[in-house]
Amino acid sequence: MNTTVLAADLGGTNLRMAVVSSDGGILHRVRKKTPESRSRDDIVAAIRNSASECMEAVQGTEIAAMGVAVPATMDFNGGILKNSPQLPSLNGLNLAEALKADFDFPMVTDNDATSAAVGEHWLGATSGFENSICITLGTGVGGGLIIHNEPYRGNSGTAGEIGHVCVEPGGFPCGCGSCGCVEQYASAIGIGNLFLQLKDGYCDSLLKDFERPTPLDVFEAANSSDALALEVFRMFGMYLGIALAGLINVLNPDVIVIGGGVSAAWELFIGHARSEIQKRAFREPAEHAKLVRAKLGDDAGILGVARLALLARK
Amino acid sequence: MNTTVLAADLGGTNLRMAVVSSDGGILHRVRKKTPESRSRDDIVAAIRNSASECMEAVQGTEIAAMGVAVPATMDFNGGILKNSPQLPSLNGLNLAEALKADFDFPMVTDNDATSAAVGEHWLGATSGFENSICITLGTGVGGGLIIHNEPYRGNSGTAGEIGHVCVEPGGFPCGCGSCGCVEQYASAIGIGNLFLQLKDGYCDSLLKDFERPTPLDVFEAANSSDALALEVFRMFGMYLGIALAGLINVLNPDVIVIGGGVSAAWELFIGHARSEIQKRAFREPAEHAKLVRAKLGDDAGILGVARLALLARK
Repeated sequence: MNTTVLAADLGGTNLRMAVVSSDGGILHRVRKKTPESRSRDDIVAAIRNSASECMEAVQGTEIAAMGVAVPATMDFNGGILKNSPQLPSLNGLNLAEALKADFDFPMVTDNDATSAAVGEHWLGATSGFENSICITLGTGVGGGLIIHNEPYRGNSGTAGEIGHVCVEPGGFPCGCGSCGCVEQYASAIGIGNLFLQLKDGYCDSLLKDFERPTPLDVFEAANSSDALALEVFRMFGMYLGIALAGLINVLNPDVIVIGGGVSAAWELFIGHARSEIQKRAFREPAEHAKLVRAKLGDDAGILGVARLALLARK
Repeated sequence: MNTTVLAADLGGTNLRMAVVSSDGGILHRVRKKTPESRSRDDIVAAIRNSASECMEAVQGTEIAAMGVAVPATMDFNGGILKNSPQLPSLNGLNLAEALKADFDFPMVTDNDATSAAVGEHWLGATSGFENSICITLGTGVGGGLIIHNEPYRGNSGTAGEIGHVCVEPGGFPCGCGSCGCVEQYASAIGIGNLFLQLKDGYCDSLLKDFERPTPLDVFEAANSSDALALEVFRMFGMYLGIALAGLINVLNPDVIVIGGGVSAAWELFIGHARSEIQKRAFREPAEHAKLVRAKLGDDAGILGVARLALLARK
C-alpha cells in the first residue's frame, strides 16, 4: 500500500511543505516565506496553514504522519527544539504538541541537516552506502552523519556540526563563539570573508568596486577567469578539504555528499578540496571515500523528513 | 563458565602477552622487547613463543581463543594487516594464517587503538557509555571510536585516526605527509616540536642546554614552574583542545577518555584543552562530553583485544 505523509522544511527564508508518497513521489507542494515576525506563533500558524493547503490539494488521500525539518538541534526524548540560531523564538518548542489539536496523525521533528542526510541516503547520492557524511554548503555549512545506515545523532542529538570544525585556529570569528570554523570559509559567509581578506591585492579585479559581492557575483567573476574570484574559490576549496581530510581520517566514510546552494560552484572549488584531501588524509580512507554532489537539491530535507515520518508511522 | 583467552599487545617497543579470563582477570603475563630486526618472521616467532610461555604457565587451563592488538590498520574481511608505519614488515600479513599451524583456537587481530577503546569500554573509564572516543597520547596520538557500544571501524577499517586531524594548516610537518596534525603537538613528538619552536625565547629556562629533552625532562621542568616547559604544555593542551572541540561538534560523544604514557602530564595540559573546548565547541555537546583519564593504563589494549577474542569465540 502506498502510504502518504506531509513533510516540511522550515528554513530561515522559506517554509516548504509537500505531500510525499512512500516511494518518495511528491504529490503536491507549497512554498511560503518564513514569517517575517519570526515569532513562534506565526511560524506554527504558517506550518499549520501550509499543511492544511496541502491536505486540501490531495483531498481524499489519507495522511499517515507528518515530518518537519527544522534549523535547530533537537532533544529527541521530548521532541523539543533546543537551539535554533536562525529562529530563536522556537527554542524550547515541542512542535508536535503545538500542532496536535489540529492534526490527528503522528508527527516527527528533526534537524534539517540530518533530514537532508536521510533524504540523500534514501533516494539520492548516498543510497546503498552504509556510512556517509552529508554536507550542505549554504549561508553556512551544515552536516549530517549516516552510520550503519541510520542517522547518527550522538549523545544529546547535536552530532554532525561539521561547519564548526576549526580549520584555522586564529581565523575569521564565527557566530558560534569560536574562530576559524570551516563555515567561515566554505559557504556564502565564507565567500564574503575571503573576498574582504583578499580584495586589496587584486586592484584590476572585476569585483574591485563591490563592497561585499553576493556569492553569485563572485561565481560569475570566477567563470570570467577573474583572479580574485578564482582565489576566493581556491581558498574555499582548500579549507573545505582540510575539514574533509580530518573527517576522512576519523570516520573513514564510504561517501561524502555535498549539496546546498553554494555547491553550484562545484567546479571552482572541488579540485582544490580534493588536492587538500590527497595531501592531508591517509591514502587508503581517502581512496575509499567517494566525494559526490547531492542529487536531491532543495528536496533533500523534505524527502528525508518524509522518510523519518514514514518510519515513525510504522 | 569462566572462559580463558590469550591476548597480546604488539608495539614498536614491546610485545606484551597475557592470559585473560572472561571477567577481565589477568592470570599470567609476559613481556618481551619487540625483536630488533623488525622482521616479519622474528615478530611472528616472538608472538608464538610468548603464547607458548603463557600457556605453559597456566597448564591445564583451556585457551578458547587468542587476540592480538597491532599497530596497524586492518582489512577485516581478510584479517590482514594493511599498513603499519612502526612495523612495516607486517604489511600484508595475515597473522591468524601465520600462526594457525601452532595453535588450534580461533584468533582475532585488531588495531591497537581500537583495542584500547574496547578495553576502556569493557572494564575502564567509558564502561556504560554508548558513544565514546578513546585517545592515546604516546609517541604519537592514537584514537579509537565506540559508537552504539561497538567499535566503529568505518568503510575499510581505518576509522579513528584522530592524531591526523589538522589543527594548524601550515604547522609542523607530519610523518603522514600532511602538516599541522594534532599528533605533532599533543604527544611525545609534539613536546619535542614545541620545545624547539619555543626555546629561543626562554634563555633562563631549566631546559636551555638541552638539544632535544625527553617528555619526562619537560614534565619535570614544568613541575618546577619552568616557563618554557609550562608554555610547551599550554600549547599541547590548546591544540589537543582544538581537535577535541571539532570531535565534540561532529560526534557529540558521551565521553572522551585520554590515556597513553604522555597523559601522565594531565594536570599540565588538561585545563588548557578544556578552555579551548569551551571556546570552540557548541555549549551543549561540550557540556555532555565528559573528559576523563583512562583507567586501564598499559592494559587497555590487551584487555580490549581479549574482549574481542572472547566475543569471536562465542
